[in-house]
Amino acid sequence: MTLESVFSASDYQSIVSINIFIVLLSACIVIGHLLEENRWMNESVTALVIGLCTGGVILLTTQGKNSKILVFSEDLFFIYLLPPIIFNAGFQVKKKQFFRNFMTIVLFGAVGTLISFVIISLGAISLFQRLGFEGLELGDFLAIGAIFSATDSVCTLQVLNQDETPLLYSLVFGEGVVNDATSVVLFNAIQTLDLEHLDSMIILKFIGNFLYLFASSTLLGLFAGLLSAYIIKKLYFGRHSTDREVAIMILMAYLSYMLAELLDLSGILTVFFCGIVMSHYTWHNVTESSRITTKHAFATMSFIAEIFIFLYVGMDALDIEKWRIASQSPVKAVSISSTIIGLLMVGRAAFVFPLSYLSNLSKKAGRPKITFREQVTIWWAGLMRGAVSIALAYNKFTIWGHTQLPSNAIMITSTIIVVLFSTLVFGILTKPIVRLMLPKRHLTREVSINSDPPSPKSIFTPLLNNDQEVEPVPDTNQNMLRPSSLCMFLTIPTRSVHHYWRKFDDAFMRPVFGGRGFMPIVPGSPTERSVHDGELA
Amino acid sequence: MTLESVFSASDYQSIVSINIFIVLLSACIVIGHLLEENRWMNESVTALVIGLCTGGVILLTTQGKNSKILVFSEDLFFIYLLPPIIFNAGFQVKKKQFFRNFMTIVLFGAVGTLISFVIISLGAISLFQRLGFEGLELGDFLAIGAIFSATDSVCTLQVLNQDETPLLYSLVFGEGVVNDATSVVLFNAIQTLDLEHLDSMIILKFIGNFLYLFASSTLLGLFAGLLSAYIIKKLYFGRHSTDREVAIMILMAYLSYMLAELLDLSGILTVFFCGIVMSHYTWHNVTESSRITTKHAFATMSFIAEIFIFLYVGMDALDIEKWRIASQSPVKAVSISSTIIGLLMVGRAAFVFPLSYLSNLSKKAGRPKITFREQVTIWWAGLMRGAVSIALAYNKFTIWGHTQLPSNAIMITSTIIVVLFSTLVFGILTKPIVRLMLPKRHLTREVSINSDPPSPKSIFTPLLNNDQEVEPVPDTNQNMLRPSSLCMFLTIPTRSVHHYWRKFDDAFMRPVFGGRGFMPIVPGSPTERSVHDGELA
Repeated sequence: MTLESVFSASDYQSIVSINIFIVLLSACIVIGHLLEENRWMNESVTALVIGLCTGGVILLTTQGKNSKILVFSEDLFFIYLLPPIIFNAGFQVKKKQFFRNFMTIVLFGAVGTLISFVIISLGAISLFQRLGFEGLELGDFLAIGAIFSATDSVCTLQVLNQDETPLLYSLVFGEGVVNDATSVVLFNAIQTLDLEHLDSMIILKFIGNFLYLFASSTLLGLFAGLLSAYIIKKLYFGRHSTDREVAIMILMAYLSYMLAELLDLSGILTVFFCGIVMSHYTWHNVTESSRITTKHAFATMSFIAEIFIFLYVGMDALDIEKWRIASQSPVKAVSISSTIIGLLMVGRAAFVFPLSYLSNLSKKAGRPKITFREQVTIWWAGLMRGAVSIALAYNKFTIWGHTQLPSNAIMITSTIIVVLFSTLVFGILTKPIVRLMLPKRHLTREVSINSDPPSPKSIFTPLLNNDQEVEPVPDTNQNMLRPSSLCMFLTIPTRSVHHYWRKFDDAFMRPVFGGRGFMPIVPGSPTERSVHDGELA
Repeated sequence: MTLESVFSASDYQSIVSINIFIVLLSACIVIGHLLEENRWMNESVTALVIGLCTGGVILLTTQGKNSKILVFSEDLFFIYLLPPIIFNAGFQVKKKQFFRNFMTIVLFGAVGTLISFVIISLGAISLFQRLGFEGLELGDFLAIGAIFSATDSVCTLQVLNQDETPLLYSLVFGEGVVNDATSVVLFNAIQTLDLEHLDSMIILKFIGNFLYLFASSTLLGLFAGLLSAYIIKKLYFGRHSTDREVAIMILMAYLSYMLAELLDLSGILTVFFCGIVMSHYTWHNVTESSRITTKHAFATMSFIAEIFIFLYVGMDALDIEKWRIASQSPVKAVSISSTIIGLLMVGRAAFVFPLSYLSNLSKKAGRPKITFREQVTIWWAGLMRGAVSIALAYNKFTIWGHTQLPSNAIMITSTIIVVLFSTLVFGILTKPIVRLMLPKRHLTREVSINSDPPSPKSIFTPLLNNDQEVEPVPDTNQNMLRPSSLCMFLTIPTRSVHHYWRKFDDAFMRPVFGGRGFMPIVPGSPTERSVHDGELA
């Protein structure tokens, strides 16, 4: 009686949908927890399978009329689900590892994605006609290249361990973020590209625009993060309440993403760098309870968003409307899907091995190189395609989630087949392959299963983990480092860049924006509070 | 370039709106923080004023065409904003105080709201005609009674302190929750009531239905809370990750609300009791970091939702469409608003003082009674009208937020005037009046301002606060209490009821659902983890 009369019929339906969705999300979490030790399964695959099953049940109960309880919407995906995932990625990343491998990551994420895009586009142009698939224009082929260049490394990251294989983890992870940004930027650039009058001037402009987007998005993210650090440091929010600090951090992070979208920049890059800056400065300016809360609240939001996406994709896969149109040529859809899967395997191999070789060449002696086994793991990690591909495909080949054109319907179903196949088959094989490629990992992992959570998620461990990479409190160690800095400069330049960055950070950035060990202890400030609370505990 | 081309024009507009809204929310938090020590202002008033100013600016920049960046939607309010506020209320409430005053709270919240409803409805019927306001039917008058019975005690709760005036706080707070539920249930019951054939049978049925809704909503909330406790206790989520625990708690809480809506029960009551059960059982079954995270994450969500609502109401107040219709009779709108304000002051006085008298009568000697000064504070605390009134008024007098009927437009503008006036004028006067009525509070407050946050929000204090009301660990104190229990039974029956509840809780409930001191310490269980982590810290 309560709200049903308030809501119209369509809203009553949306209440039913929300209920089903929440139950399914809970089921995914519980089942994912129960299968945690399983050799083959992971959370993404579980969510995808549950989504598929639910779609099947709905399809049966509605007598084949409908399979989804929500229409796939790019807005929902790009505005609400993606930002928390990317922000959390930046917030939890090990900054030192990430920046040490920064060049390699950009090489893989940007140059690699471009190589992959070219190979998939050219492959599609030359192969699709032989398969008898007509009706696509040059713009469509380029879009296909961009759509299938967007990898989904969630599956692999769930299996890799940040502590055991730090280099590999930071490469796979960093590439994933830069790749997402690159493929979305690429996709949109193609949409506005004038394909009729293509000359070198336009291509140069295109590349310039691309670099501008990267730089300005990054700067915006850095700015938003620093602003939040400055506001919280100046105003001592903790003096009044932890809730205000947490709220300001959440709102500023989301604002950075939405501002980037407003200014036509890449929100993914912006919110990622905002997360990095927030964990380096802002996080150290808040109370102890705010630190624990933000750490876990961001991780939880990201976790729920990830499951939500896979559940959604699973459910959407059985959408009867598209299958009905595509079913007039089922062989065609399957042959196109397998062609695309072949192309993306080749396209990825075409840049992972050469670029790894380049990256190893440029590395000084003594720095860890990317072994062949690690190269294979990196190659494998980027074979899965996920929600970004689906969102882009929907944008290109449908109007508001619907399509009537046979060629478009086939492209949508092919995208879904590629996503399902790669996530299910490649996803299930990921754990065994990673264990085969990195056997030493296997051993340490088995030991750790019974004593500790696989990722550092219990109290205070995350706090320690995040900081153990940072050198001891600056005041005391600056003098110690100075004698050897000239020698370091001669042998390992990158190390020295890091050293100068730290000096700059300590001298200019931290006094203004706060950060570890740089919050002055004043009465009523967060630092004093947390010291005081520490005693309470 | 990135997403603009992906989004249609209307979605680009929505990105602008989201940006403005996030900036305004952040501004409210910062300004609210700066004004914290101010004698007159509070967060609600700040948000309302900022909302009004923004509405004004938008009105000017669009040359009087538009004042809102979002259309007020009941869905947004009832499905997304209200649940976190009410759930957090249940989660953070001091359970012992709440249940000790349970009868008084229900008396005020349910019976009091009914008395207020009758007085406002009858007053409107007799007075509106004299003001020359025609066009309303009996159903409309009853709806007006329900709309203006919904109080908004957020302002007062921001001023009262749970530790200094526990009785008063729990009464004002508890009444607020029960009142929200009662007025929404009442409002919907009226919508379905057959006013043509009103007889005693229908009224009896109405009352029976009302009681059924109360009981079943409460039971559903208890069930959802216990289920979450059981799942988390059985499966030891903490063994794998804190994120899963937090995610399950958030999802189960929201599920309880949506299930209640699905079953046509009162979601407000359900989610409130779910919050109480979760803080009594579930919260004790999770890791230490999950406890801190949930405590603050729920409070933050509730905090953001509250500010959002006031901002929204402030912006919506300047909606030009309604004012244009109502401006044909501006005197009428003002006279009707002031009549309603008078009625609600009388309607509230008509139950606060008699029911306080009744409640005092029934209390045994030695138990704290409600003093006259406290009665005045309670009366004052319920004079503000807020978002619930606006949401109900929109539902009754508009179709999808629009109206053309002059009488409906006048009712909407009158509701907005009442909400603005009561929140701004009464809201600003609340701090001085509470200090005048409870002078001893004033003193302790001044002292505490510089040393501690006004509400217990720093690390570990919330954990201590939540539990200090609970007697020491059951195992040790049960034997101590036993000798005196017969004596207690004779003199203070309610105390004894509480004692038997504790015995039942310790013997049956806690072993099954967990809870304070009742989690077995097994290897890898959350309890062991938190003990271990405590040592790390």
